[in-house]
Amino acid sequence: MEKSIVLKSRPVGKPTLSNFEFVTDNLNRNLNVGELRLETKYVSVDPYLRGRMNDAKSYIPPFELNKPIQSGSIAKVIESKNENFAVGDYVSGMLDWKTKQVSSGTGLIKVNPNKAPLSAYLGILGMTGLTAYLGLTQIGKPVAGETLVVSGAAGAVGSVVGQIGKILGLSVVGIAGTDEKIALLKNKFGFDAGINYNTSTDLKADLAKAAPKGIDIYFDNVGGSISEAVLYHINKFARIIICGAIAVYNEKEIPKSTSVQPFLVKNSALMQGFIVSNYADKFSEAIKQLASWLAQDKITYTETIVDGFDQIPQAFIDLFEGKNKGKMIVKI
Amino acid sequence: MEKSIVLKSRPVGKPTLSNFEFVTDNLNRNLNVGELRLETKYVSVDPYLRGRMNDAKSYIPPFELNKPIQSGSIAKVIESKNENFAVGDYVSGMLDWKTKQVSSGTGLIKVNPNKAPLSAYLGILGMTGLTAYLGLTQIGKPVAGETLVVSGAAGAVGSVVGQIGKILGLSVVGIAGTDEKIALLKNKFGFDAGINYNTSTDLKADLAKAAPKGIDIYFDNVGGSISEAVLYHINKFARIIICGAIAVYNEKEIPKSTSVQPFLVKNSALMQGFIVSNYADKFSEAIKQLASWLAQDKITYTETIVDGFDQIPQAFIDLFEGKNKGKMIVKI
Repeated sequence: MEKSIVLKSRPVGKPTLSNFEFVTDNLNRNLNVGELRLETKYVSVDPYLRGRMNDAKSYIPPFELNKPIQSGSIAKVIESKNENFAVGDYVSGMLDWKTKQVSSGTGLIKVNPNKAPLSAYLGILGMTGLTAYLGLTQIGKPVAGETLVVSGAAGAVGSVVGQIGKILGLSVVGIAGTDEKIALLKNKFGFDAGINYNTSTDLKADLAKAAPKGIDIYFDNVGGSISEAVLYHINKFARIIICGAIAVYNEKEIPKSTSVQPFLVKNSALMQGFIVSNYADKFSEAIKQLASWLAQDKITYTETIVDGFDQIPQAFIDLFEGKNKGKMIVKI
Repeated sequence: MEKSIVLKSRPVGKPTLSNFEFVTDNLNRNLNVGELRLETKYVSVDPYLRGRMNDAKSYIPPFELNKPIQSGSIAKVIESKNENFAVGDYVSGMLDWKTKQVSSGTGLIKVNPNKAPLSAYLGILGMTGLTAYLGLTQIGKPVAGETLVVSGAAGAVGSVVGQIGKILGLSVVGIAGTDEKIALLKNKFGFDAGINYNTSTDLKADLAKAAPKGIDIYFDNVGGSISEAVLYHINKFARIIICGAIAVYNEKEIPKSTSVQPFLVKNSALMQGFIVSNYADKFSEAIKQLASWLAQDKITYTETIVDGFDQIPQAFIDLFEGKNKGKMIVKI
C-alpha cells in the first residue's frame, strides 16, 4: 500500500495541516507498454506551490481538490516498460506527492547520482539554480561594478543569486530575517553586506548604508514592506526582477503597498515578473554554467533536508516561517 | 519691461496661483557675440513640471525658488549675434517663462511655420509625439492584433498613443474622465472603445467588457486607482509603460496602491518607466515617421490653446483638473 498527499481544502491565508490529507492507494496494477514505476526519493517544497492551492487563474493551473499535489521530485525507476528508462535509473520531474507512482516518462530527465548528490538536482542544478541564474542574467542584465540587492537572500534562490552576482563582479547586499542567516550570507556565500529586516529599525537607512552607490538590480523574492524600502534607493535604469512574493502569498486579498510607478518613471526603471519556465530554451546552457561553477567551487549551496514522507506538509508550511536555510527538501 | 514667472514657493499638494509670482525685468542689455534675443510665442504646460517644483532628486533637477520656471516653448528670434540664427527665425527649446529672453542658442532647434502650425512643434512633432511613439514602440513592442489600453487617453500623449496603436493594428481602449472626451476618442481618434472612469461604477467589469481578450499593452499616464483596475486584466507577457502618474503628482506622500508585484510575476509581465529624453538617438527617425503620418492624415491632434502670458500658471493648474483636451499650450 502506497501513500499520497492530496489537497483536502484550499488554504485561506496561511496553509495548515488540515488543508492536506494522507490517502492510501493500492498501486498493484500492471504497467502498460511505455510506462514505468517510480519510487520517490526526494521531494522539493517551494513557496510558489501556495499559489497553485488557490482556485485562481495563474501561470500554471491550480491543484484540484482531493487530487495529489505535485512538485519537483527525484525518483528511482523500480520497474520499466519504457525503453528510455531502465530499472535503477534516477529521474527528475514534476511528480505527485506519492511514495510510489506510475509515469509515462514524459517530462522526466535522467540524473546522475555520481556527478552530484541527488538533492542537488532539485536545487542548484535544478529549478533553483536556473531561476537564480536566468532571472539575474536575463532580466537583471548585470554589469560589473553595479550594486545588487537580494531579498530572501538566505533562501534557496537568493543565496545562489548573490553568489552569481559576486562571480559577475557586482557588489551584493542580502536581506534576510535572522542574524544567523546574515552571518551565513557574509561568511559562506560571500555577500558584501547583509541586513536583518527583523532587527533593523530603519530599513531605508540601513539600505543607504549597505548600498552607498544606490541599487542597480533588485532580485525580489519577497515583496511587501522590504521591497517598498528598496524602491527609495534604486538608481537610474534600475532593473527589478520579481521572482516571488512570499510576503503576500498567504494574504487573502492582494495588499496595498507604496505605489511603484512614481519610482519607476523617476528612474526609467524596469520591473519584470520572472517565471523560469519561460526560458526553457536557455536551460541547458545555464545548467552547464552552473555545473562548471559548482565544479570549480565558485558556488556553494545550502539545503534543509527533512526526513520522511509524512513531513511534507509541515515542511511546506515551515517555508512561510522562514525555517529553512536554502532549498527545503524532504527525503523519503 | 518684460515679465517673468518665478516659482515663489514649492506647492504642497495641488499647485495654486500663490506658488507663482510675476516679476518685471528690464532686458535692455546688449547682446554678446553668440547670443540671440527671443520673443516667446507659445509655452507648453505639462504635468511633469509639477515634479520639478518639489525639492527632490529626480531625472531632472528641481526648479529653484525665485527663479523663472522653464518649459518647452516656441519663440521668434528678434535680434541675433549668433550666426546660426537670423532675425525672424522661429525656434523650439526649453525656455524660461519670460515674454522676452536672451539665449546662447544651445539646445534650440529651428522650426518651420510653413510646414506645420508653430504649436504642433510643442505637440505632435515635439515631445508629445515623441513620447507617444517611442514609449509605445520601444517599451510596448506592439504586435498587430494585440489589445492596448491607454489611460489619460484624451490627453496630449494619450490621444496620439491610441492613434498610433490603431495604425499598428492594435485593438485600442481609452480611459478618460468625461463623456465628451470618450466621444472624442471614438469619433475623432478612432479608438475602438472608451471608458469614463468618473461614471463607471465598476472599472474592472468595464475593462473586461472593453478588452475581452485581456490587455497586452498598458500605456499608463495616470497611475492611481485606474491603473490598479487594469492590472486585473493583463495578459501573459504584458508590457506596461509608466509614462506619467498625474494621479499622484500632487500627493504629499507617495500613496499606497494594490501591490503590482503579484500581477507581474503571475503574468511574466513587464512594467517600465519611460522618459523620452533617454531615447534621443531615436528622435529624428520618430519625427520623420510622425510627420509622414500627419501628412497622410493618418494621425490628428487636439490642442487647448489659452491666450496670454498671464494665464500660464492657471493653465498649468487646470491640467490637474483635466480641463485640457490634448496638448495644453499658452499663446503669448
